Amino acid sequence: MPKIVILGAGLMGTAFSIPLTDNGHEVRLVGTHLDSDIIEEIHQDGIHPRLRTRVPKGVTPYTYDRLGKAMQDAELVVLGVNSMGVDWAADMLGPLLSPQIPVLMLTKGMAGDGRHLQILPDALRAGLPDRYRDAARLVAIGGPSIAGELAARRHSCVVLTGPDQSLLDKLAAILRTPYYHIWTSTDMIGVEVCVALKNVYALAVGLVGGFLEKEGVADNGAVMHNLSAAIFAQGLWEISYLVKQLGGQQRSVYSLPGAGDQYVTSQGGRNGRMGRWLGLGVPYSQAKAEYMPEDTIEGAELAAAIGPTVEELVSRGELDGDNLPLLRTMIAIVCHDAPAKIPWDDFFAGKAV
Amino acid sequence: MPKIVILGAGLMGTAFSIPLTDNGHEVRLVGTHLDSDIIEEIHQDGIHPRLRTRVPKGVTPYTYDRLGKAMQDAELVVLGVNSMGVDWAADMLGPLLSPQIPVLMLTKGMAGDGRHLQILPDALRAGLPDRYRDAARLVAIGGPSIAGELAARRHSCVVLTGPDQSLLDKLAAILRTPYYHIWTSTDMIGVEVCVALKNVYALAVGLVGGFLEKEGVADNGAVMHNLSAAIFAQGLWEISYLVKQLGGQQRSVYSLPGAGDQYVTSQGGRNGRMGRWLGLGVPYSQAKAEYMPEDTIEGAELAAAIGPTVEELVSRGELDGDNLPLLRTMIAIVCHDAPAKIPWDDFFAGKAV
Repeated sequence: MPKIVILGAGLMGTAFSIPLTDNGHEVRLVGTHLDSDIIEEIHQDGIHPRLRTRVPKGVTPYTYDRLGKAMQDAELVVLGVNSMGVDWAADMLGPLLSPQIPVLMLTKGMAGDGRHLQILPDALRAGLPDRYRDAARLVAIGGPSIAGELAARRHSCVVLTGPDQSLLDKLAAILRTPYYHIWTSTDMIGVEVCVALKNVYALAVGLVGGFLEKEGVADNGAVMHNLSAAIFAQGLWEISYLVKQLGGQQRSVYSLPGAGDQYVTSQGGRNGRMGRWLGLGVPYSQAKAEYMPEDTIEGAELAAAIGPTVEELVSRGELDGDNLPLLRTMIAIVCHDAPAKIPWDDFFAGKAV
Repeated sequence: MPKIVILGAGLMGTAFSIPLTDNGHEVRLVGTHLDSDIIEEIHQDGIHPRLRTRVPKGVTPYTYDRLGKAMQDAELVVLGVNSMGVDWAADMLGPLLSPQIPVLMLTKGMAGDGRHLQILPDALRAGLPDRYRDAARLVAIGGPSIAGELAARRHSCVVLTGPDQSLLDKLAAILRTPYYHIWTSTDMIGVEVCVALKNVYALAVGLVGGFLEKEGVADNGAVMHNLSAAIFAQGLWEISYLVKQLGGQQRSVYSLPGAGDQYVTSQGGRNGRMGRWLGLGVPYSQAKAEYMPEDTIEGAELAAAIGPTVEELVSRGELDGDNLPLLRTMIAIVCHDAPAKIPWDDFFAGKAV
């Protein structure tokens, strides 16, 4: 059975060890420099403190300074760092990887350098050593998958994506269990754009929680589902546009990576909690510093990571701003502490894909 | 200001009077043969009992036997009956309508005659008198709009659809308010297929409520959002396929009528309540008779209305069953009391649109 290294012992990295060990694989779970406490707790009592789940016997925990040891004979590396950890991971893995060892990214996000938007596997590749940068075999997994539910072996449906169908088939066979349902797709751009952007639109849906708290439930009991749904729809509209612009396929939009992942991410979580503060009228920088200083808000991280590049591409006419009013609103909120105001009149204004 | 007749004094028909009267229009709200109690209560104390909202002063309530009187000088008819009431409405309105009076349908659904699927405006048209059947100007409205929220003047975003853009523009101007945001689309097939089918997929998402109750919350607190999201995504995938097969446009799928309306309908309501019973293992016929005898379950009504036709079209090869596993599962549940079992292996199996 393959020996598999998971780098990143957060919620998703650790949850991913469950289907792997259920399939009999040997897993080495390597914490990042931020995960040392977690690795320590797993060593001591076998339980991941945030996942609230017993780590399976087939998982050996490592601190990141022992990554070299963990990588011995590794046949697959799974990257479970957060979106800001990709450069760090490239530095750490660079000396230890080879093209024979595929890297499967759980990490979601996009990068922008002021002139181009990039999916995260490309950002990782850019950080790898010259000697095998082009040959590195990178795949990714996306779709609606809350880590705690995967860890509890609840039915989860995801898409494994990469350019090489035979590699996808091989990896899917390693990962698939009766509760972990896996499809494959060679539309890596479409999948990665969908699963990155869902975070910023889930943050937008989260605003409604704050709006509702401010206005209150109506006399007839009405809340604000219509508003959430309109924001959700505008989000999927914008994702559809960006997937097309960046060269992905629409099938990823109206299946698990787009509609499915945006749905699950809009049901709560950290994006939703931050969205509530923003909807209540607290500027982003204040809400982050005062209420969620320790939390990674993936939707906000994404807006910050791609915001300046998106604005530059719009001003150069390479992206059509009419198709991205909600993304631009969220960028303004996160990057410039703009007030949370829904740009109704600009919704659905661009040309459809 | 136009005089407007709303036929059907249920939740949505009545809620629709709020933006109309806010815009200063004169509204005549005509109850169906099932709404007589509601009309009586509105007469007595001015409040719609189920909407829990005061009916505006500009609304005059009528019982259906006085439809002829209500129709005097009417400039627009709004149809707010439920999906089973379309033939009845055609019979009632037939002698009173003319091509000069547009009919705006709030009613959602589809019809099947064993050989063809039909959107509801076409079903209504088929029931109108020969003398103006072809000339009747039918439009429809769709999108995420819970009636109680519209009645409470909460932001709601919808699409007004029909073949004639100038009529759409004119009607949108009559309807639009600062809280009722209206877009127009000439893709009537796409919009109508989306807003009809969302009900059956919301019923499918609702199954998860029952599954969760049966299995319970996991030790680590995990529920079943991943599962809901996968079902949601498969629903949108199937909607995308059916919209294409029936001649509609994909833009309706990833905007308000598809993604938006399916989102809001999946957040609860009667489809969700019935879905829970089915997910708990109660056969549909028993759940309907014992627990929801008085409720219209739009998702189940749709499955019953189109089920035999869908199965016939699949067997004739005119629809690809591989693209409709979830719809066929829901049809089997509703029409044949089949058990609620998710056909994982068949998800996302067909060719993408």
